[in-house]
Amino acid sequence: MPSAENRQRVVILGAGFGGISAAQKLARADVAITVIDRRNYHLFQPLLYQVATADLSPADVAWPIRSIFSRQKNVSVALAEVQSVDLAAKSVLTDGGVFEYDHLIVATGAHHAYFGNDDWEEHAPGLKRIVDATEIRKRVLMAFERAEIAKDPAQQARELTFVIVGGGPTGVEMAGAISELARFSLAKDFRNIDPGQTRVILIEAGQRILTAMPEDLSHKAARSLERLGVEVQLNTRVEDITADGVRTSEGEIPAATKIWGAGVAVRDAGAWLSAETDQAGRVIVTPQLTLPDHPEVSVVGDAAKITWKDNQIVPGIAPAAKQAGAYVAKRIARETLGQPREKTPFAYKHAGNLATIGRHAAVIDMGWLKLSGVLAWWIWGVAHIYFLIGVRQPIFVALSWFWSYLTYAKGARLITGLRPLIRPQKSPAKDNES
Amino acid sequence: MPSAENRQRVVILGAGFGGISAAQKLARADVAITVIDRRNYHLFQPLLYQVATADLSPADVAWPIRSIFSRQKNVSVALAEVQSVDLAAKSVLTDGGVFEYDHLIVATGAHHAYFGNDDWEEHAPGLKRIVDATEIRKRVLMAFERAEIAKDPAQQARELTFVIVGGGPTGVEMAGAISELARFSLAKDFRNIDPGQTRVILIEAGQRILTAMPEDLSHKAARSLERLGVEVQLNTRVEDITADGVRTSEGEIPAATKIWGAGVAVRDAGAWLSAETDQAGRVIVTPQLTLPDHPEVSVVGDAAKITWKDNQIVPGIAPAAKQAGAYVAKRIARETLGQPREKTPFAYKHAGNLATIGRHAAVIDMGWLKLSGVLAWWIWGVAHIYFLIGVRQPIFVALSWFWSYLTYAKGARLITGLRPLIRPQKSPAKDNES
Repeated sequence: MPSAENRQRVVILGAGFGGISAAQKLARADVAITVIDRRNYHLFQPLLYQVATADLSPADVAWPIRSIFSRQKNVSVALAEVQSVDLAAKSVLTDGGVFEYDHLIVATGAHHAYFGNDDWEEHAPGLKRIVDATEIRKRVLMAFERAEIAKDPAQQARELTFVIVGGGPTGVEMAGAISELARFSLAKDFRNIDPGQTRVILIEAGQRILTAMPEDLSHKAARSLERLGVEVQLNTRVEDITADGVRTSEGEIPAATKIWGAGVAVRDAGAWLSAETDQAGRVIVTPQLTLPDHPEVSVVGDAAKITWKDNQIVPGIAPAAKQAGAYVAKRIARETLGQPREKTPFAYKHAGNLATIGRHAAVIDMGWLKLSGVLAWWIWGVAHIYFLIGVRQPIFVALSWFWSYLTYAKGARLITGLRPLIRPQKSPAKDNES
Repeated sequence: MPSAENRQRVVILGAGFGGISAAQKLARADVAITVIDRRNYHLFQPLLYQVATADLSPADVAWPIRSIFSRQKNVSVALAEVQSVDLAAKSVLTDGGVFEYDHLIVATGAHHAYFGNDDWEEHAPGLKRIVDATEIRKRVLMAFERAEIAKDPAQQARELTFVIVGGGPTGVEMAGAISELARFSLAKDFRNIDPGQTRVILIEAGQRILTAMPEDLSHKAARSLERLGVEVQLNTRVEDITADGVRTSEGEIPAATKIWGAGVAVRDAGAWLSAETDQAGRVIVTPQLTLPDHPEVSVVGDAAKITWKDNQIVPGIAPAAKQAGAYVAKRIARETLGQPREKTPFAYKHAGNLATIGRHAAVIDMGWLKLSGVLAWWIWGVAHIYFLIGVRQPIFVALSWFWSYLTYAKGARLITGLRPLIRPQKSPAKDNES
C-alpha cells in the first residue's frame, strides 16, 4: 500500500446527497478525501418542509458531517466556504485555507431562485436551508399569534391566509402540511380565532400541479389537497409579492405569509469552474460528468446539467444525486488502481416520483406502478425510512421519526430568534386591485 | 356561575415555572386568565445547558405555551412584550395591546448579569434563553472546527480551551458536559486534532463550587469534575474577558470560548411596578408576595425577593417558583369566592439542591440525605423525568429524552445561523501577562 503522501487527493465540495455518496463509495479506495462544506451538517432535504411546519426539529433532518464519516478514516471534513477554484493549479481556495486536489467533485447543489424578482425573497422565502425552514416556521406560527390578538377582522383574515407559490413537490407538501397544522394541531389552542378558518392557497402557473407526474396523479393530488382545505389555483401567474400579499393574473390576495416553491438555480459552481452553464446556472458536463477540458473535475447533483432519455434533465432529487456521486466515485477508484479512464457514460436510473399530501395521502409514479391515497402514503413513509437508514445508520432513529410524525406530536412549534415580537403589519391599502 | 363578563381577570406576566404553576392552580377558579409572554414557549431551564452542549434540541426543552393550556379553557395566551404597567388603571400595556386586570401576577424571571461589565457579554454569553443555548452550542462546535484546520499550534490550543466563569450549578453542568463532549462524543470525528486535549477550565471566585451545598458535597463535585478532565480554579477572580481569552487574578488564559455562569439579575419588573428592589433588581414583596400598597399585584419566582429561614433568599430554582405561583393562585382563588384575603405568609419548602456532573455523577443535598456519584445521578435523572411529566404530560416523552441522553446520541450537533463561517481569530498579542 502506498504511503499517505502518495495517495491521490480527492476534494469534494458539498456534503449533500451527491457529495456524501461519492465519499462513501470511495471508502475502500486508497485516496485521501476532504469533504468541504460551509455547514457542519448534511441536510436531509426531503423532510425539510417538516421543520418548516413544526413537525420536526432541525436536528431531526440534519446530521453532523463528521459523525457520518467518523469511522471512514480516509475522509477528513473541513468546515469552510469556497472562494474560488484554480483549475490550473488544481486547488480550491476557501476561507479556511487552500486545498489541493488530484480529483475534484463539485456537489454544491442549487438554491431557490426568483427569476429576476429578487425583492420577492424577503416576503416569500424559499425552502432550501435549515434557516429557511426555521424562518418559515416562525412566520407561519407568528401569523396565528398576530391573528389571535388582532382586533380588525380584515387583518385577522390576512394573517390567516397562506400563499404557496409553485405546485411542485415542495409547494404541495408545504400546502398540505400548513393546512393540517391549522386544522388539527392548532385547532384547540386559540380563544379568539378559529384556525380552521385558515386559507391555504397553492398557486401554479401551469395547467396542473406536480408536472413530473402523469396527468391522472396530478389531478388526484389536487383533489387530495382540496380535501385538506387547500385552494389550488392553476393557470395563475404571480405578478408581484409584497409584505401585504400577492398579486396574481387572477387578482389580489391579501396574505401575511407567502412561501416560494417555484424554482431553483445554481449560484456559484459555474463561476468557480469558469464553465459553461445553462440558464439555470447548471454546469454543462460530459457524459462522464466531467468538465469538457478537465477530466479530473466532476460535477454531480443539482449543480450539473445531466440529461437522460429524450434529452430530459435528470430531476433534482436525492436518488439522482446519489447515483451521480457513486458513478464518479467508481470512476475515480478505477483510476487510482491504474486502470484506464472510464468511458461508460453516466446512466440515470429513475426509480420514480413521489409526493406526500399531509399525513394520509401521497402520489407515487414508478412507471410500472401508479398509486395515490393512503397506501401511497405508507410507501412514501417506508421509502423515507429506508433513505434515513442509509444516511444515519440506526433504524430506531428512522422509526422514531416516523412514530412521532404519525402521532401528530408537533413538538417543534417554537418561534425562535432574538426578538420574535408582535409587529402588527399594515393592512393592504387596496384589498382588490384586479 | 357568573357570566364571563363578571369574571375576575387574572393577568400573568411570564410563562416560566411560576407563571405556569399559578395559571394551572387557577384551573377551577371562575376567573379569566391571560398569560402574556414574549416567547411562544415555556422553557424547561434546568435542561437548557444540554441544548448548549448539543445533547438536546431546543424543542426538547421548550413547549408551546398554548399547548400547555389547550384544554384549560379559562386561559388565553398572548404573545406580546410588556412595555409598562399602570397600577392605578390596573392595566398592562404591551406591543400587542392593553390588558386590564383585577389580579396581576408578575413572573418574568431573571437574566444573566455581568455586574457592571456589560462588554463581557459578547465574549462570554450566559445561558438563560434558547438563543443563548444555540449561540453557545455554535461557539463550542465552531472552536473544534477552527482548531481542526488551524496550522498554528498556539491557535489550536486557544481554540481547544473553554473557560466557564462561575461555579454554580450552571457552570458545573456546562463544564462537565463540554468535557464529556470533547472526550467522548467528538473523540473520533477529527483528523488533525485530538479533542481529548481540550482544556475545560471552571473559574470560581469563592473557596468552593456549589456554595448552596454542604462543604463535603462541594469537594466531591470538584473531584468528579476533575475526573472528567475539568480544571477547577478556586479563589480566582475574573478581571477581564476579551475575544482572545480571560484575565484572572491568577494569570492570563488564552481561550476562544468563554461562558458566563456567574450571576443573574432582574431587569424590568421593578421599573414596571415602580417598586422597591434589592441590588439584584428583585422586587421587594410582602410575606404574601404582593406589592406593599397593591395587594392585587403579586410577584413570584426569580423576579421577587422572597426570604425563608435565617433571612436567606429563596433560591432561583424551579420548585421555588412553582410553590410561589401556586400559593398566589390559591390566595386569588379564595378571594374570587368572596372569602377574606389570605393572611398566611408564603412558606417556602426546600426539597433540596442537586447538580449533575456529566453523565455519571451528581451531587444531591436534601438535608436528611446527602449523596454523590452514580446513585445521585440516577436520582437527578428521575427527578427531571418527574418534572418533565408535570409540564408536558406524556411519560414517554420524558423517557425518550432520558434514553437519548443515556445513549450519548448528541443528535443536535448543528451549527445553525445564517453564515457560520470560519473567521480565524487573531492569536492573543501576549500569551502570558501575569
